[in-house]
Amino acid sequence: VSFLKNAWYVAAWGREVPTEKLLPRILLGEPVVFFRDEKGAVAGIEDRCPHRFAPLHEGTLEGGQVRCRYHGLEFNGAGACVRNPHGNGAIPSAARVKSYRVVEKDLIVWVWMSDESAADESLIPDFSFLTSVPDTARNTGYLPTAANYQLLADNIMDLSHVDYLHPTTLGGGAMTRSRPEVTESGTQVRIKWTVKDDVVPPSFAHHMPDPNAKADQTTQVVWYPPGYMNLSTSVEVADGQDICTNNLHLMTPETEERTHYFFANTRNFVQEDGEFNRMLDTILINVFSEEDKPMVEAQQRNMGTSDLFSLRPVLLACDGGAVRARRTLETLIANEQAMRAQP
Amino acid sequence: VSFLKNAWYVAAWGREVPTEKLLPRILLGEPVVFFRDEKGAVAGIEDRCPHRFAPLHEGTLEGGQVRCRYHGLEFNGAGACVRNPHGNGAIPSAARVKSYRVVEKDLIVWVWMSDESAADESLIPDFSFLTSVPDTARNTGYLPTAANYQLLADNIMDLSHVDYLHPTTLGGGAMTRSRPEVTESGTQVRIKWTVKDDVVPPSFAHHMPDPNAKADQTTQVVWYPPGYMNLSTSVEVADGQDICTNNLHLMTPETEERTHYFFANTRNFVQEDGEFNRMLDTILINVFSEEDKPMVEAQQRNMGTSDLFSLRPVLLACDGGAVRARRTLETLIANEQAMRAQP
Amino acid sequence: VSFLKNAWYVAAWGREVPTEKLLPRILLGEPVVFFRDEKGAVAGIEDRCPHRFAPLHEGTLEGGQVRCRYHGLEFNGAGACVRNPHGNGAIPSAARVKSYRVVEKDLIVWVWMSDESAADESLIPDFSFLTSVPDTARNTGYLPTAANYQLLADNIMDLSHVDYLHPTTLGGGAMTRSRPEVTESGTQVRIKWTVKDDVVPPSFAHHMPDPNAKADQTTQVVWYPPGYMNLSTSVEVADGQDICTNNLHLMTPETEERTHYFFANTRNFVQEDGEFNRMLDTILINVFSEEDKPMVEAQQRNMGTSDLFSLRPVLLACDGGAVRARRTLETLIANEQAMRAQP
Repeated sequence: VSFLKNAWYVAAWGREVPTEKLLPRILLGEPVVFFRDEKGAVAGIEDRCPHRFAPLHEGTLEGGQVRCRYHGLEFNGAGACVRNPHGNGAIPSAARVKSYRVVEKDLIVWVWMSDESAADESLIPDFSFLTSVPDTARNTGYLPTAANYQLLADNIMDLSHVDYLHPTTLGGGAMTRSRPEVTESGTQVRIKWTVKDDVVPPSFAHHMPDPNAKADQTTQVVWYPPGYMNLSTSVEVADGQDICTNNLHLMTPETEERTHYFFANTRNFVQEDGEFNRMLDTILINVFSEEDKPMVEAQQRNMGTSDLFSLRPVLLACDGGAVRARRTLETLIANEQAMRAQP
Repeated sequence: VSFLKNAWYVAAWGREVPTEKLLPRILLGEPVVFFRDEKGAVAGIEDRCPHRFAPLHEGTLEGGQVRCRYHGLEFNGAGACVRNPHGNGAIPSAARVKSYRVVEKDLIVWVWMSDESAADESLIPDFSFLTSVPDTARNTGYLPTAANYQLLADNIMDLSHVDYLHPTTLGGGAMTRSRPEVTESGTQVRIKWTVKDDVVPPSFAHHMPDPNAKADQTTQVVWYPPGYMNLSTSVEVADGQDICTNNLHLMTPETEERTHYFFANTRNFVQEDGEFNRMLDTILINVFSEEDKPMVEAQQRNMGTSDLFSLRPVLLACDGGAVRARRTLETLIANEQAMRAQP
Repeated sequence: VSFLKNAWYVAAWGREVPTEKLLPRILLGEPVVFFRDEKGAVAGIEDRCPHRFAPLHEGTLEGGQVRCRYHGLEFNGAGACVRNPHGNGAIPSAARVKSYRVVEKDLIVWVWMSDESAADESLIPDFSFLTSVPDTARNTGYLPTAANYQLLADNIMDLSHVDYLHPTTLGGGAMTRSRPEVTESGTQVRIKWTVKDDVVPPSFAHHMPDPNAKADQTTQVVWYPPGYMNLSTSVEVADGQDICTNNLHLMTPETEERTHYFFANTRNFVQEDGEFNRMLDTILINVFSEEDKPMVEAQQRNMGTSDLFSLRPVLLACDGGAVRARRTLETLIANEQAMRAQP
């Protein structure tokens, strides 16, 4: 098992952590419980009481402190035990749990999984576009998936799959016909599909003046380590006028074989229609949960615990982006492990 | 895997072994089938035919003999094959299964899991209080649980948990405020909570002259190896007059990670009301299955296959009884294994 | 894990592979997808795309070619990639999947699991009796079972079990009383039970002039490696007149601990009654799924991953046929492995 440790990971949507609620989530194999302190800031601490190893998320939250439901020890957001109701009330020095650095930004709860001292907020990607549209022009979703997070990233980095897996919604054949261009910038990998006068995917065609007309289209994915992708699509409606969507596909490892898949979608059209937005919500969840998720989970079952490259996959023209992203992550992890091994 | 082998274990309530029925149960990892012989005495033999390893409990019981449902070999309560319907009917000398020494006493079916020769009935704890009350003043239950039996024993040995896990029924805060006294006598561990003029738990308060009044209370648990606990509680109603309950919590390992949890309850009040007794039955089962069981199973999941002490738990004032019981059992198992290792 | 590799295995009933449908099936641990080519011949190829390891059976079948549902590679029945829709369309030389030699014969789809070059159709057993009766005198079924295929073969090779496991349908006690004769011929093992003037099993008794009369009966099983059995039963109705059934019990390993159990039944009586045939279908499926399957699966659970003989079973007179079949298969597998180990 090797994950990039010095990295910000998406732990949850902010809305998943309402006031007075405890949200348990396993990240990189570690059980964490998230909650809001008295000022509303999100905290994340180890979800396992050091006394008898009860899950803290079964407890109660009061004044930003979590009380274990088993024998009543209380912990704050820094992981310190702040109350021992037993005996003389002295708090043993070992009575503390791991705490994590947490930042809430752009509707997302980010968590730093390694030493807090190395956590640098400026490394968090800028996804502020999420809040620059009306609420009725944005969808956000969460889909726990039984597959390695890199398989889910590969899925987004090779969007030709929409033509085969999503032919009635997102695919129209143009992505396969296109020749994507892959570029790298620092640790980011960018892949861009430019389509001239080709079939418009069903989900966009509805919003075109002539649903059957062909159009110029541009799709771009920017990958950030360890597994975040910003996917933007624009379809030309008229000269210099585009309909666009901007999407996030954020993959956080739960374990080596399970992923927390967060997704989001914003658009520059039909922005004020709440009913349309709810319909779109349903469609997106359907597509991801009924088409992508079963396929990627089947891949995982067929691959078992083997690493992708160890199985010698036949690589095609469409794999360029995914392979570059995998190689970048591989290098980052190797470098990090080499640093740790130094005396 | 190490269990105390030279010990009486609770296999079942006697009522679980009706005449002409076969009861399968895995004890300490061994499959055993229990049934009554022609005189009504309970027998226990290996639940696996030596011919083709079919489970004997799927067979039929006639005249105290079990006939295998696969090819018809018949076995008696001593584990001997007494009929081979095939060929010339000769019974191969290897055609026998392990039999166990079984004693039915105080409504309980006790089984000795090691060599029968070492089985000494006088070592069985005296739980005759169970039969000294009317049937309508007694409840007995069984709850298979996915946790190590020692975690379930710890649960009873540290009754401060009632204040956090059972606040609406058994807990009122007094147990946490109390300073329990732990004493040892031979291989028994006794823990006693003495409470003066404190909140009465909801389940007792109903039966007090003034449900809101505070009262003196005494709670005591006596632990017997390998995992039997007699819990008695008395609450002073008036000078020299108490309402009392006497409970058993009997933990038999199914495997390292599963337990047969047997419990019983008797009381010295409302002894003749069958309807009240049935209501109490429902409440007890609810509390144990909806509150204790999920908590202890979550503990087990968080601990995996690790031994408790290897995880370096933070020990509190309330852990005294549980730790003594664990240390006693540890010593008994170590001594037993040392004896076996001798030439 | 060791299977006989140079052998024909039953993959499916022909009716399980309709035109334009993809049938996935794991055989000897290998995922295979079966389908019909344009001429209607059944093909079998590896059910795992070499690009991203997606299951091919989720794809579409057109003109005898399977298109992967993930990124659109197309494969023919020989396992060759015949279309790559990406980039310049060149097909990488590694873009191929394993293909299997498949023969459809006697309603059965047979597959050769080893090198195609060694596949010799003349080695396929002759089960043409299946098609020599009207359709209304034949039943065929399929039952996936969680047990090793040899346990399922043992079940048929020791038919005395019908007297204990199927007393209300197939058993009447005569099989246990009979002394079966075991003979070998090449790699076939034959076991024959001859019964004189004994109780007729309930399923036959219905069709006798006097259902309560005793009769002469002959039952024979012929075993072929690796696990195919032809079971024929005849009961004398009058001088020189018999009612007969002819059955197949065909066991193909899915894995070491799971089996594809195919069964068939033909008869020489009530041959034209479709309703009776459907009723018989229901009875057979009930007997196998409610009586044999649970028993053999319980055996497997009791045995774990241990080999039968390593557990030192007590062998009885009725085990002769099963033991000879196991020894024959053991020798065939050992010989095959020795051949492979040669330089």
